[in-house]
Amino acid sequence: MIKHPTPEDLAKLPVTLTDVYGAAERIRDYTHLTPLIPSRTFSQMTGARVYLKAENLQVIGAFKARGAFNKILQLSPEQRRAGVITYSSGNHAQAVARAGQALGIKAVVVMPIDAPKPKVEATRDTYGAEVHFCGTTSTERKALAEKFAAERGLTMIPPFDDEQIVAGQGTVGLEILREVPDVDVVLVPVGGGGLLSGVAVAIKSARPRAAVYGVEPETANAMHLSLKAGHLVTIPPSDTEADGLKPVQPGHIPFIISEALVDDVKLIDDARMTAARALLEERSKLVVEPSGAVGLAWLLAQGGPRKNPLRGHKVVVILSGGNIDPEYRKRHMGPIQSDLFDQ
Amino acid sequence: MIKHPTPEDLAKLPVTLTDVYGAAERIRDYTHLTPLIPSRTFSQMTGARVYLKAENLQVIGAFKARGAFNKILQLSPEQRRAGVITYSSGNHAQAVARAGQALGIKAVVVMPIDAPKPKVEATRDTYGAEVHFCGTTSTERKALAEKFAAERGLTMIPPFDDEQIVAGQGTVGLEILREVPDVDVVLVPVGGGGLLSGVAVAIKSARPRAAVYGVEPETANAMHLSLKAGHLVTIPPSDTEADGLKPVQPGHIPFIISEALVDDVKLIDDARMTAARALLEERSKLVVEPSGAVGLAWLLAQGGPRKNPLRGHKVVVILSGGNIDPEYRKRHMGPIQSDLFDQ
Repeated sequence: MIKHPTPEDLAKLPVTLTDVYGAAERIRDYTHLTPLIPSRTFSQMTGARVYLKAENLQVIGAFKARGAFNKILQLSPEQRRAGVITYSSGNHAQAVARAGQALGIKAVVVMPIDAPKPKVEATRDTYGAEVHFCGTTSTERKALAEKFAAERGLTMIPPFDDEQIVAGQGTVGLEILREVPDVDVVLVPVGGGGLLSGVAVAIKSARPRAAVYGVEPETANAMHLSLKAGHLVTIPPSDTEADGLKPVQPGHIPFIISEALVDDVKLIDDARMTAARALLEERSKLVVEPSGAVGLAWLLAQGGPRKNPLRGHKVVVILSGGNIDPEYRKRHMGPIQSDLFDQ
Repeated sequence: MIKHPTPEDLAKLPVTLTDVYGAAERIRDYTHLTPLIPSRTFSQMTGARVYLKAENLQVIGAFKARGAFNKILQLSPEQRRAGVITYSSGNHAQAVARAGQALGIKAVVVMPIDAPKPKVEATRDTYGAEVHFCGTTSTERKALAEKFAAERGLTMIPPFDDEQIVAGQGTVGLEILREVPDVDVVLVPVGGGGLLSGVAVAIKSARPRAAVYGVEPETANAMHLSLKAGHLVTIPPSDTEADGLKPVQPGHIPFIISEALVDDVKLIDDARMTAARALLEERSKLVVEPSGAVGLAWLLAQGGPRKNPLRGHKVVVILSGGNIDPEYRKRHMGPIQSDLFDQ
């Protein structure tokens, strides 16, 4: 059932373990080695030995800093002088802005006109990027960003469909292996697939018998459907509250890697994601954004210690980020629906 | 200005570095080595190099697990068979209950009749202690606990005035030194003084030139006044929202040690504590209880990077716990008053 790639399989992929090790070396001075926190609460609730990889404690509050630094640190001196641009409105924008700030490189970010105020402020005021506003769709933003890139000679930093971005995100996998070398299962939130594919490269190269599962919101299941179909599938826009997991299509590079290495992509509903997020805050004292809680939500949804299929296994749950929209928080005040997780 | 105790001074104290090392060895399998998280945000706001010691991620959500395990692990087989008792309603109660549960020792906790429901549930349901309710004051609870202790032969586990409790809390200091051996300043929340005195023993034994400062709410300043007076001072009950820092008198043993080793006890108001707590949640993605935020609040209150007297120093801020009352949270929804921290 679990994919056991051969060294030859691994060598053919667009990103290899060597790339991930290179990324780890490169970004070391700019990012945190985040804690891997054993969770008694969630171990008891599932019968698994659960560890939380706290990427919400990463620079800019999400794993995206890894990929952005790895990419931008490899630009030529000319590219660095000209600057970088991106059109994400979320954690990737903050990561690019922060990398630009740390490395003295001009960073331009095109954001939607309805971008949440805290994200605009972080990108522009805290991390010093030049912010432009354009439309409300990704297509409009991308068009303007490409126009700027061409006019001003800026290098585009894509959010996930890029070998160096994927290699950067993969450093999460190396850190997991360093602390739990005998890990059995890794659960990874999936948007465009950058984190999933990078982590899969690291884990499957070193410990092929470990399972790597992506987890997507059930209405934002582009990677799930693409892997099933054997080609990239585009889904209609989802209204999931997991704002980091909304891409309507996986990246091409993440897809190729995931097809070779990822054992499955699981689906979870928003209600359980919301409950898992609240439990992380109440029980683990960690602020995690909705997108970051899908792995735990899926694990808890598999049932209590008597019936959970992962009972007895060492399970690492990647909490991908902690940048939470205050509006989301207001909407979800009140008791935690932990009864959604049938014991 | 900074106290430089001699080895002779240190050897005379009721708790020594050897005791703290013993505690670390003893509790290792039962507690977490919590992460020490470098904070770019708070370093920028103060000009210091700020590290957050995340005891909110400790077992039971607070450092109290360290002392409770260290004490209970040293009971005789007879004492273990008879069981333990305490009368705290806060984190210490949960720590004693959890240690009892982990070690198969009966734990009895006397709580006030108005104890917050989540604390009762954690102590009784999650950690399996036998809970009794009695009155609303510490005096009433203590009397009933002592009655039970005598009748049933239970061993009393005091919250802070005990050598083994202090040695257990001191293990926080060892972990700080392991990760930042050249630390300049450690900021420690102070209630009864168990954490402060334990940390002071560890830090001052290994690195006497580092300053150890306690931080108290300005209306719950029993240790501050006691050190000033040179003897134990009892204060009137405080209405501070730092519910973990309310003891009206420091412990005798913590006082003796603090008098010898602690460089100063600083005071901070509730409004800044509340703002610092909210900043920890928003910027550092850490859920910290009000008591746990006093160290950061005091540091931020010293001013921005141009005028903060600790600028350029390596400062470790101990976040002592994360068990937050949902009622407190409701009261403090809304914008963070970060303008209280003049830059």
